[in-house]
Amino acid sequence: MDINTYMQDIGRRARAASRLMAAASTAAKNDALAAIAAEIRRQSAALVAANGKDLAAARSAGLDAAMLDRLTLNEKGVEAMAAGLEQIATLPDPVGEITDVRRRPSGIQVGRMRVPLGVIGIIYEARPNVTADAAALCLKAGNAAILRGGSEAIESNRAIAACVHAGLKTAGLPEDAIQVVDTTDRAAVGALITMPQYVDVIVPRGGKGLIARVSAEAKVPVIKHLDGNCHVYIDEDADPAKIVPIVENAKTQRYGTCNTAETLLVARAVAATALPAIAAMFAAKGVEMRCDEEALAILRGAAIGEAKLVAASETDWREEFLAPIIAVKVVAGVDEAIAHINTYSSAHTEAIVTENYTRAMRFLREVDSSSVMVNASTRFADGFEYGLGAEIGISTDKFHARGPVGLEGLTSQKWIVFGDGEVRR
Amino acid sequence: MDINTYMQDIGRRARAASRLMAAASTAAKNDALAAIAAEIRRQSAALVAANGKDLAAARSAGLDAAMLDRLTLNEKGVEAMAAGLEQIATLPDPVGEITDVRRRPSGIQVGRMRVPLGVIGIIYEARPNVTADAAALCLKAGNAAILRGGSEAIESNRAIAACVHAGLKTAGLPEDAIQVVDTTDRAAVGALITMPQYVDVIVPRGGKGLIARVSAEAKVPVIKHLDGNCHVYIDEDADPAKIVPIVENAKTQRYGTCNTAETLLVARAVAATALPAIAAMFAAKGVEMRCDEEALAILRGAAIGEAKLVAASETDWREEFLAPIIAVKVVAGVDEAIAHINTYSSAHTEAIVTENYTRAMRFLREVDSSSVMVNASTRFADGFEYGLGAEIGISTDKFHARGPVGLEGLTSQKWIVFGDGEVRR
Repeated sequence: MDINTYMQDIGRRARAASRLMAAASTAAKNDALAAIAAEIRRQSAALVAANGKDLAAARSAGLDAAMLDRLTLNEKGVEAMAAGLEQIATLPDPVGEITDVRRRPSGIQVGRMRVPLGVIGIIYEARPNVTADAAALCLKAGNAAILRGGSEAIESNRAIAACVHAGLKTAGLPEDAIQVVDTTDRAAVGALITMPQYVDVIVPRGGKGLIARVSAEAKVPVIKHLDGNCHVYIDEDADPAKIVPIVENAKTQRYGTCNTAETLLVARAVAATALPAIAAMFAAKGVEMRCDEEALAILRGAAIGEAKLVAASETDWREEFLAPIIAVKVVAGVDEAIAHINTYSSAHTEAIVTENYTRAMRFLREVDSSSVMVNASTRFADGFEYGLGAEIGISTDKFHARGPVGLEGLTSQKWIVFGDGEVRR
Repeated sequence: MDINTYMQDIGRRARAASRLMAAASTAAKNDALAAIAAEIRRQSAALVAANGKDLAAARSAGLDAAMLDRLTLNEKGVEAMAAGLEQIATLPDPVGEITDVRRRPSGIQVGRMRVPLGVIGIIYEARPNVTADAAALCLKAGNAAILRGGSEAIESNRAIAACVHAGLKTAGLPEDAIQVVDTTDRAAVGALITMPQYVDVIVPRGGKGLIARVSAEAKVPVIKHLDGNCHVYIDEDADPAKIVPIVENAKTQRYGTCNTAETLLVARAVAATALPAIAAMFAAKGVEMRCDEEALAILRGAAIGEAKLVAASETDWREEFLAPIIAVKVVAGVDEAIAHINTYSSAHTEAIVTENYTRAMRFLREVDSSSVMVNASTRFADGFEYGLGAEIGISTDKFHARGPVGLEGLTSQKWIVFGDGEVRR
């Protein structure tokens, strides 16, 4: 069977399964999640062994340490996977939720019902835990899923897929509801993203190259997240006690996450006092500051011992460093801060530190990013922190889902009408 | 200036104007709508004269009567346009609405704020009234718009654009917020749908050919509506008093609208009584019935005088007739009805006629269309009837907006966080 025929067959099965999943009861879906978790625990040794084959092949292929780390599935990872499935079972079922029912002058009552999107295609790198995690979210939201993980994880993914199918069967749900693409042929991705008749939305999870390629070539909607170039703006009315803790947490709690701050903007009126305090904290943590001229002048004057100060270039304002580096700029005030952010940001997450009510509200309203915060660390932009229970990704688009995407983002709303024989006049 | 440079320039201006529109007050937007309406009334004679030039050119080019009818703008049409603008001014402003604010265990309060999408591109046929209507909806939702109407209406659209710009200026809003593409070069459409840096979403309004082309070639999301192949299903527990009025209204109130019923499904248990009553009504109205074998046998046996009965072919189940023709099929019951609809429907609007609670709820839940109704005519699927105040179109997609799209569909929601110095642990 050639790869296109193979993918079309997967698509047809997924579409058929999605009809059954849309009508599946909450109990059946939760039973499936519990049964998959139980099977994963039971197969722990087999999963670790399958992963061992992937790791051996990856080592001989010369994969780097970070990739090997993401590929590794040990007993602790298996347990975390099972616990994650059980946690998703506890979330409220979004499907069937009826809202906004209003009676109209014609007599009909019009409302909305939340329904699954249908078939979700997930394309991700060699991270076996994503297989279970993405399957669980799609299943709970009443969708069918087609999972295409990195080819380096093929043995692990096959073993996880067997557990998922066993669990679906136990719960009386169609095994085709979750299909793992069982080929390392890269053409599978091209086929998956160009079958609008079978796939309703694609979620790419991985590096920028993958996401850019999928976005450019997909013939179906994509829930995507490109860069996370997040900003913290220190307003002239910032509470001095909040400045350093928020900047420290936003930049240094973790360097490699997409909600980490990459640019610091400081109002001119407080730059001379705020910047040295921030620089002392960064110096202690070894964070390099790429400063505009004004910030550089202030900080060189302050002569902070270990501060790593570098002159910023234009490209630094757009950069997602994912490293102990931060771009720093002095701005006239909130207007310049908003303009800078709306020009250079990747529209992920931005925060203002201020006690001024009007500027806080203006920042919330005028900054065009998926998450906008007052007096909080950008690191809070996360499905768990927002109370979604879990997330399939963070969208920097405006269309459909924006920001952390949980179960709700994997659903849609249709209109429903309760009538009593009404006809239109 | 070549067409691509021209369109890029329009895009750049629209993006800049969209920033100002997003921050515009409700009062300024309503003032602009009122000022545009006033200017349109003041320029009534000039608008009719400009339209006269378009009509003369269209007549010499040999446009058909239906196209000339849609192109025509008389004094009554000008007044309707102005009244429509004033009506949109009375709708609540969706921008800035804050919902779902909840306190999280970390201490932050997380909620959502409704925000404009940004820049909307509207591509439509030679219907001058759409220019004012689409401009008003985009403006009220805080967006900038780029309008590309059919080239046959270029003089009318120029004249309307002048009124729109005068109104925006009066209200202190940027004239670039609403730009009318002032060229008849068809390459303008290709450019408009492939500038994701300047255009956030495209709304094509017009024939299937236009929509299919835009969908296939667009590099930005499209809010689109293809066919309206709507179904009415008569269940075995239908109230006999509701059957004929709903079928009559759904099929015959208007033949050419997308929410008109095109297929009738009848449960076997009631087919022998329901079908003759329906056929008598259709016979009186000259509606042709394209019947499956079973329906044909029942109706030929019933020998209704003027009934136009034809044997249905497979293609009739997919057809949007937009004419006094309806496909008719006898089904075993609600399961077969749902399966038929989910196979053949264009996912626009479907209705069940039943007094049975469980089957009504199953139909609502399992039919995968943008509007699903119980005991009401499909003709109610409409932005005004649903209480949206106005609609920019009806989406048969699941992503972002589904069904009638009003002001809310021209907006998005961002996450907002109210903090008090919280950092992530």
